[in-house]
Amino acid sequence: MPVNQDIFNFRVTYADTDQMGVMHHSNYLRYFEMARHKLMRTIGVSYAEIEKGGLAMPVIRALLDYKKTAHYDQELKIESGISLNKGPRLLVEAVMRNKAGEVVCTSAITLAYVSKITGKACRPPALIKSKLLNI
Amino acid sequence: MPVNQDIFNFRVTYADTDQMGVMHHSNYLRYFEMARHKLMRTIGVSYAEIEKGGLAMPVIRALLDYKKTAHYDQELKIESGISLNKGPRLLVEAVMRNKAGEVVCTSAITLAYVSKITGKACRPPALIKSKLLNI
Amino acid sequence: MPVNQDIFNFRVTYADTDQMGVMHHSNYLRYFEMARHKLMRTIGVSYAEIEKGGLAMPVIRALLDYKKTAHYDQELKIESGISLNKGPRLLVEAVMRNKAGEVVCTSAITLAYVSKITGKACRPPALIKSKLLNI
Amino acid sequence: MPVNQDIFNFRVTYADTDQMGVMHHSNYLRYFEMARHKLMRTIGVSYAEIEKGGLAMPVIRALLDYKKTAHYDQELKIESGISLNKGPRLLVEAVMRNKAGEVVCTSAITLAYVSKITGKACRPPALIKSKLLNI
Repeated sequence: MPVNQDIFNFRVTYADTDQMGVMHHSNYLRYFEMARHKLMRTIGVSYAEIEKGGLAMPVIRALLDYKKTAHYDQELKIESGISLNKGPRLLVEAVMRNKAGEVVCTSAITLAYVSKITGKACRPPALIKSKLLNI
Repeated sequence: MPVNQDIFNFRVTYADTDQMGVMHHSNYLRYFEMARHKLMRTIGVSYAEIEKGGLAMPVIRALLDYKKTAHYDQELKIESGISLNKGPRLLVEAVMRNKAGEVVCTSAITLAYVSKITGKACRPPALIKSKLLNI
Repeated sequence: MPVNQDIFNFRVTYADTDQMGVMHHSNYLRYFEMARHKLMRTIGVSYAEIEKGGLAMPVIRALLDYKKTAHYDQELKIESGISLNKGPRLLVEAVMRNKAGEVVCTSAITLAYVSKITGKACRPPALIKSKLLNI
Repeated sequence: MPVNQDIFNFRVTYADTDQMGVMHHSNYLRYFEMARHKLMRTIGVSYAEIEKGGLAMPVIRALLDYKKTAHYDQELKIESGISLNKGPRLLVEAVMRNKAGEVVCTSAITLAYVSKITGKACRPPALIKSKLLNI
């Protein structure tokens, strides 16, 4: 069960759609990222500060399960939470839902902590760990 | 082992990059789609014709493993192949490599055959099946 | 002077940035579109309803003047207004500003009213005209 | 009349389309950028080298005229050329055409030479000037 949960609301844009008349599958990752960065701001470790501190957090694995189509102008929400923060990795799981509460898409995104100086995977600073962990 | 393999070449664009200085993780799905559509054209069942025939093929699952960063102006190639075509689903696996032959990213994309009339999952027409299957 | 003004707030995403460390110039059009569609919802003629009514409104001209760079996580706002609604054309002008009130970018976007049946430019229905015009 | 002309070929992707069934207007800028960067490589001053040399070239103005719709899987070409290279500015004009030779879109993109150290507009180094200018 994820901890440190947060909710991100958005509206599907016209540019998100494709000629099938639904949000194109490549656009979901951008919204899950926005939700994830909001989650981190809420927890108190904004990604902007992490980068200033000399860390990068590249995505190393992404799993998306598309359950229902999303449509132009639809208001959707994403519930994100941290499922695992172990060693040099952070796993963020999220569920995108429509107004009716139906699951539109789920995601499991794995990020790595990487030192911007060495370019190597590293453990997160104690401060980040204490704020993100709690699991 | 995938069959019906095909190769798609591309060059990382400036718009693909993010402030980490690498291709943003959300942009890979677009290239894997281009590679998949080229694969289908090569096999002889172009996605454009599939749509004209009353079928849609939405992505229902996407798994991406990012192995090495990709950089602006780098020339990359994607090897795509069909791993499974069973009932209403098609699984396309692909490997993105750089000029040195190193794996940049791998993907496993599952698509569904959906009737544009009923909106329901369906089996592909015999012609498509015969061209895509061969497994 | 534009009438029917409206304000749209957004936050620059990580995916919006490029390796120059700023929002890539190709991403502004998407935000100006979101602002324009919000303006139309505010006025009472949502683009979703316009499409259902058998009209499309393709962009036929876009002029963007980039004044200051926009950065990841920056909160920006767009003020949009209708400058001209004459015959088969609608001109929407907008200004993107940062928190300090500085102009980040201005846009002048011309859209055409096109019948989805004939594919030809047409005049807007009286209802749309009365709500959008007022100039 | 532009000099240093070059041609860039591409194919409209599925992700480029929107629910109007055509290439979304925000996607053209990315293709014009690809064409422009190819033009610069052809001339012998690749953008990658310009950045390494301490310069950035942000877009400061973009004008796009959409003439005909572009469709999924359509093969298009962009003819780009340098129209002006004066002081700290470079103007690149381009025409996008379909296979029938019809104009799909035209663009006039103004870029600035900016020092990455000072962040200020500057004149281009003599080498770049000699290769780009010739007007």
